[in-house]
Amino acid sequence: MKLAFLGTSAALPTAERGLSCTCIERNGELFVFDAGEGAQMAFIRAGFGWNKPMRLFVTHMHGDHCIGILGLLQSMSLNRRTEPLEVYGPAGIDEFLAANMRTLGVLPPFLVTVNIVDAAGPVVATDEYEVLACGSAHRVESYSYILAERPRPGRFYPEKASSLGVAKGSMWHRLQTGHDVTVDGRIVHPSDVMGAQRPGLRVGISGDTRPTKELEVFFAGCDWLVFESTFSHDLHEKALETMHTTAREAGELAARAAARNLVLTHFSARHADESDLVKEASKAHGSVTGARDGLVIELSG
Amino acid sequence: MKLAFLGTSAALPTAERGLSCTCIERNGELFVFDAGEGAQMAFIRAGFGWNKPMRLFVTHMHGDHCIGILGLLQSMSLNRRTEPLEVYGPAGIDEFLAANMRTLGVLPPFLVTVNIVDAAGPVVATDEYEVLACGSAHRVESYSYILAERPRPGRFYPEKASSLGVAKGSMWHRLQTGHDVTVDGRIVHPSDVMGAQRPGLRVGISGDTRPTKELEVFFAGCDWLVFESTFSHDLHEKALETMHTTAREAGELAARAAARNLVLTHFSARHADESDLVKEASKAHGSVTGARDGLVIELSG
Repeated sequence: MKLAFLGTSAALPTAERGLSCTCIERNGELFVFDAGEGAQMAFIRAGFGWNKPMRLFVTHMHGDHCIGILGLLQSMSLNRRTEPLEVYGPAGIDEFLAANMRTLGVLPPFLVTVNIVDAAGPVVATDEYEVLACGSAHRVESYSYILAERPRPGRFYPEKASSLGVAKGSMWHRLQTGHDVTVDGRIVHPSDVMGAQRPGLRVGISGDTRPTKELEVFFAGCDWLVFESTFSHDLHEKALETMHTTAREAGELAARAAARNLVLTHFSARHADESDLVKEASKAHGSVTGARDGLVIELSG
Repeated sequence: MKLAFLGTSAALPTAERGLSCTCIERNGELFVFDAGEGAQMAFIRAGFGWNKPMRLFVTHMHGDHCIGILGLLQSMSLNRRTEPLEVYGPAGIDEFLAANMRTLGVLPPFLVTVNIVDAAGPVVATDEYEVLACGSAHRVESYSYILAERPRPGRFYPEKASSLGVAKGSMWHRLQTGHDVTVDGRIVHPSDVMGAQRPGLRVGISGDTRPTKELEVFFAGCDWLVFESTFSHDLHEKALETMHTTAREAGELAARAAARNLVLTHFSARHADESDLVKEASKAHGSVTGARDGLVIELSG
């Protein structure tokens, strides 16, 4: 699983940073969180193809978080995407897409499904993962998300199965999928031949928000937490006024949520160099990374 | 007067080229022709300020020519622009702007005036210049534009005025503004102390189009003609199908229109290097330049 930062600037782009776009690539599927202007150019630079299964989650309906969807749709169309595209976001995303597709004459040759997010809870659930939403605290309706992998079965030890006389083939498969098998009248349990269940990874994405108790609970135990850090704490007043989070607050929230790793992103254009913000958050949390456009982090289980 | 290329790619951006945006800077005023995705980033790189008088002309309502307006509006708003912004474009530009300002909650703190272009003729006329529109031939309603400076008075020669006994001050001003003056009962004409009237510059911008007879007439005698050149001529079929122009056709049209200088832009992503297109057009025209993102041409009178 990879976490890729395509745009890490807040509100205004800079020469080095594009507007919000954070991606997770997992087993060939893309999870895109926000797509500000320039997302399609960043997509090209990242080398993502145009026809990957993709789910796109919008945290809130501000232009710097969703205008890039239009260019993605156009490039996917011109590149003859056939895979459906699932879009999730607050009310308004439907009108935004419909009005632009109408006025710009964009008619994607693939299915675009729009799912309105209007409450906390799972917005996607498959056998392998869920995506969960939680209301965040910004100037308009907004959501944070978690991609939560479901626990994976423990590792299978073939030598243990053989030593217990279990024949390779359908019997192994039954054990691997959680069923007991009987060998010469003796019952063999999956736990006899497999390690402990492996927890899935949890990756949280804050979007634009003030830090809240609700988000602290929501992000509890995340392996990776991508949290907005628009300002340094000496601009706390400005963070309150514009409903953003300071680096110190992001570090403190991540620490209280016991998130294993914190990645700061969404930096105000005044913080050209994010290292001071990383230092500030590091006073509260032991594993802080500052995102830059093009940063890719390999997430291990 | 400066001609600046902010985005020179057709339809799909590349790692080196952004989407359509061509600017003219004249006496501190900006004339922007189309603003595809990424225009605000290119604006920052070009060092244009956010509060210059500005007129923005849209050639047609395809996303790669107008989505960037949204980011420009947002950045101008955040940078507290106060100057009005005049937008000109075909029907649909009004709904495009209104729908996005509504769904994205963009409320610029400056006046945005939308002028629908629906016929050939002048769309702006001031004492110093006109902007003229002409229907072009693309898949949707589309226009080409010319920025045409009005002729400027000839150069004033103070030494000639002095030798004729004309006192410096209001008499000079009268001569400079086209009036006769009388000195010791002798009439002095403006032509006695001034050179010939200097023609203004004419700069043409094609937008996306097939080459047409009408455009050849429209662009007749342009000092600078910025013409789309999406394909090389071996892709002529594709140009016909998608209603674009090949480099050879652009060169031939510019030659027949007796445009002094031709600049090719709007290159298909397959033409990574525009030099072959420049060579192709150069067979028909003696002054051909290939645009690249960031290219600035000083236009002399």
